[in-house]
Amino acid sequence: MASPKWNLSEDRYFDPDTSTRSVARELYESVADMPIVSPHGHVDPRLFADEDSSFGTPTDLFIIPDHYVSRMLYSQGIALEDLGIPRTDGGKVEPDHRKIWQIFADNFHLFRGTPSGAWLAHELNIIFGIEEKLTGKTAQEIYDKIEAKLAEPEFRPRALFDRFNIEVLCTTDAAADPLTHHRAIRDSGWKGDIRPTFRPDNVVNLFTRGWNENIDALSKAGGITVDSYSSFIRALEERRGFFKSLGAMATDHAAETAYTCRLSDSDADAVFQRALKGKATAEDARIFTSHMVMESARMSIEDGLVMQFHVGSVRNHNDAIYNKFGPDKGCDFPQKSEFTHNLRAILNKYGNDTRLTLIVFTLDETSYAREASEE
Amino acid sequence: MASPKWNLSEDRYFDPDTSTRSVARELYESVADMPIVSPHGHVDPRLFADEDSSFGTPTDLFIIPDHYVSRMLYSQGIALEDLGIPRTDGGKVEPDHRKIWQIFADNFHLFRGTPSGAWLAHELNIIFGIEEKLTGKTAQEIYDKIEAKLAEPEFRPRALFDRFNIEVLCTTDAAADPLTHHRAIRDSGWKGDIRPTFRPDNVVNLFTRGWNENIDALSKAGGITVDSYSSFIRALEERRGFFKSLGAMATDHAAETAYTCRLSDSDADAVFQRALKGKATAEDARIFTSHMVMESARMSIEDGLVMQFHVGSVRNHNDAIYNKFGPDKGCDFPQKSEFTHNLRAILNKYGNDTRLTLIVFTLDETSYAREASEE
Amino acid sequence: MASPKWNLSEDRYFDPDTSTRSVARELYESVADMPIVSPHGHVDPRLFADEDSSFGTPTDLFIIPDHYVSRMLYSQGIALEDLGIPRTDGGKVEPDHRKIWQIFADNFHLFRGTPSGAWLAHELNIIFGIEEKLTGKTAQEIYDKIEAKLAEPEFRPRALFDRFNIEVLCTTDAAADPLTHHRAIRDSGWKGDIRPTFRPDNVVNLFTRGWNENIDALSKAGGITVDSYSSFIRALEERRGFFKSLGAMATDHAAETAYTCRLSDSDADAVFQRALKGKATAEDARIFTSHMVMESARMSIEDGLVMQFHVGSVRNHNDAIYNKFGPDKGCDFPQKSEFTHNLRAILNKYGNDTRLTLIVFTLDETSYAREASEE
Repeated sequence: MASPKWNLSEDRYFDPDTSTRSVARELYESVADMPIVSPHGHVDPRLFADEDSSFGTPTDLFIIPDHYVSRMLYSQGIALEDLGIPRTDGGKVEPDHRKIWQIFADNFHLFRGTPSGAWLAHELNIIFGIEEKLTGKTAQEIYDKIEAKLAEPEFRPRALFDRFNIEVLCTTDAAADPLTHHRAIRDSGWKGDIRPTFRPDNVVNLFTRGWNENIDALSKAGGITVDSYSSFIRALEERRGFFKSLGAMATDHAAETAYTCRLSDSDADAVFQRALKGKATAEDARIFTSHMVMESARMSIEDGLVMQFHVGSVRNHNDAIYNKFGPDKGCDFPQKSEFTHNLRAILNKYGNDTRLTLIVFTLDETSYAREASEE
Repeated sequence: MASPKWNLSEDRYFDPDTSTRSVARELYESVADMPIVSPHGHVDPRLFADEDSSFGTPTDLFIIPDHYVSRMLYSQGIALEDLGIPRTDGGKVEPDHRKIWQIFADNFHLFRGTPSGAWLAHELNIIFGIEEKLTGKTAQEIYDKIEAKLAEPEFRPRALFDRFNIEVLCTTDAAADPLTHHRAIRDSGWKGDIRPTFRPDNVVNLFTRGWNENIDALSKAGGITVDSYSSFIRALEERRGFFKSLGAMATDHAAETAYTCRLSDSDADAVFQRALKGKATAEDARIFTSHMVMESARMSIEDGLVMQFHVGSVRNHNDAIYNKFGPDKGCDFPQKSEFTHNLRAILNKYGNDTRLTLIVFTLDETSYAREASEE
Repeated sequence: MASPKWNLSEDRYFDPDTSTRSVARELYESVADMPIVSPHGHVDPRLFADEDSSFGTPTDLFIIPDHYVSRMLYSQGIALEDLGIPRTDGGKVEPDHRKIWQIFADNFHLFRGTPSGAWLAHELNIIFGIEEKLTGKTAQEIYDKIEAKLAEPEFRPRALFDRFNIEVLCTTDAAADPLTHHRAIRDSGWKGDIRPTFRPDNVVNLFTRGWNENIDALSKAGGITVDSYSSFIRALEERRGFFKSLGAMATDHAAETAYTCRLSDSDADAVFQRALKGKATAEDARIFTSHMVMESARMSIEDGLVMQFHVGSVRNHNDAIYNKFGPDKGCDFPQKSEFTHNLRAILNKYGNDTRLTLIVFTLDETSYAREASEE
């Protein structure tokens, strides 16, 4: 019997109601040919650093870096080691990418009706031109086809950047990042517009694993020895300038809650000194983050970088996964978010200044109908 | 080129799904010709006090008193002074109503897809018969037309009251209000049914700006010197009777949360005495409001006034706007509301009494599917 | 004039949008003829204990045990006594089932547009074949018809079990329940598959009314004297084994919140000893429940029973009703639920064990879009 084929409706992302759908299609058609401006994302700039960069194997592209995929498989009892996810201790994980792909294909039905499933179907059928659905039976044949495509020059990252008509793509980069790949892209003469985004979380959050090393890296990156709150602020300002020099338009900040408050400089320094000595408390960390959100708004008003603020994710919820595989492995869960009270301090201090553009993201959809509306 | 025209669908407030829409239309048609009974609103009774009252200029009608309009424009960097919003210090604001109208028209696209936009389109096209859409280009011509209409007898408030087939309209009035306009309406012999609603927030909330002056006004209004909790209660009861004598059917109460609890009379008096001396704490204010909600239910059981209770709005969120322009300027934001625990005290004390009608309003739509349902 | 007739659309539970509806109908038709597997419910096993069991009068079936029905009528001022709801003090309530039915029929319009109304319409029209709508006028005639049906052998519980094509029906039973009816069903030779579910709430929740009596009953049920935390655990384990021997597949647990934490055995015993002496505090009760949820997960891993966990209901909200009529009288209200933080302890301790199946129920629909999703 022939394998079932993909049959993706042109209208699959639109409302099923026919009158809503025809308006949606009309709106979509009016913008479908416009270039993509991607102001926030997590693409690795290394992919564009030289023209021969490739996505690796089908498993490198579809499975190993996609924690939505691996988390779904793990929820059904499949070990992350069997999916080739690297362990933080360097312990053995499955090296055979065809074997991993087979597990993925055997369990592909799990993604039915999920956003990951919609994404994967689009990639397989529309981007890679695979006609058969992915099943245990078609797994290896489809692996062959994708592998062959990935070897073609048309499937190099830079070629896809052009094919997708991307006008600008912003990445997310740590404060101390030397932006080597961004510089290499610029130096290469390639005309793709890839810009860094300044994300200082791993030096702002005093409880980040390796915070002291991150502070050292920050000192080295900008040549300013960070040994106090004031030198910390100077170092951040210097780095923001460096990011801007490589095209950055924005910063990005994450916190568990949207709480904002302002410390005096001397209180901020006292917290910072405790952190340097490894003696910061959880409350120090919480309040320092809240303070630094406000301080970042002050910097944004001065240097013009758009400020993005993400809240509501409780990270590394599963200790066993975090200890074995590290962060960003599908174990972050949303919590309730509160904005009306939490943002009051920052809005009262900086919100009436027309120079500030603050974009607040939420994972809690009830925020939209409640706190994002004026009463 | 001709200006674009309004083209408002008859069905614009109904669901786009055709089967839902036809049911909605049928339901609507069965009630569309019924008179309007408006039990809760904020119309100024002065408008009806004599037959020559008018709405003023188009800017007086559409812009200056509508904080949804001014707040949207402010969010795009337009100063409230430039919209003619009066400052509390009497400082200069734009006096030219045509200039304000031009700003409004230049930015009218901001209201696309908003409830304000739907309301304004209805007013302009259906009530005032304006055929062209409001744009920077049509601004002054449309101003002329509305100004001319407003000068016609058919656009006097009393005439519109009849045209809209309003059976009864309830206003909202402070506890100490002498209800001069309501009495004038009665005395005028006009047959429009306008009724006051008793809203004691500005004497119940001990932290209201000007609370002591409000208490003095309350003393004067009813001739009962309010110098203790017990005289406060007597004064409120006297005022409720006065409001009833002018047709009031209901009271209205606002609080940040729905928390209810009952103080002993002596504890209530201790709090009240501290307030009189300007020494009430935030906790005093919070608990006194919670107590007075319960006490108001007791009064409603006795005098039969329907009790309305609004919670969930964090008021005067923007200090700069509040200090310059006062309350009700579009800076109130919803917060999460909780009813199951908060209303337990009032419901257990008064909720089984069939004489009480308590209407609870929420700004938090998640309340409907959660706490408003029986498990 | 003829009484209005029921006219229930075949599609009444489906979306009104025609394209969604046709997909819904197709999906439904593909499963409509499958047998019912009912893993969680509150049917009384006594109904199936012998072949002559009946549902009693129409009022016994439709009104007295259905707190959604009686709560709605109570909300309109009808006393529960007038609906024949038994009082805990044995006080007089309406004994005339025809009179109660008349009240129900006179007020049947209250159920329009409610889930109860949909359920009742289905029962009356589809199950009992009543063609006229229930009104004050048709009340007694419809009572006659239902009474006659209930006297037929086809309307015995066992006959309906077969007519409804039920493959398996799980009941809910207290930890100390001797499962007499379940044993009688087995011994009767009837082939209906009715299984108990182990619900230990009334011994786990230290603040349950009659907790000491429940503990005594637990001691007697399994022959293990419960006088310490360790004997309590042993007794629960013994009872779970007994429930399994009569076909149980699952346990069921309720708590006001989903909070989970683990006590040391000695701390758990200290709390338990205070409870035995009637000295447990509210905090003891809260933390002991949170501990026992975790301990139940440990048992489920060992004995394979699926674990069900219900949270978010604030029970017995109306003191007057609770004192006069006891629990489960329509006075339980949902509160906000929180899972991300609350379940962290249980998931970290047991959630990576593939032997555990934990089903979490919520009454707070915002949970689905927030905490039930991976970020």
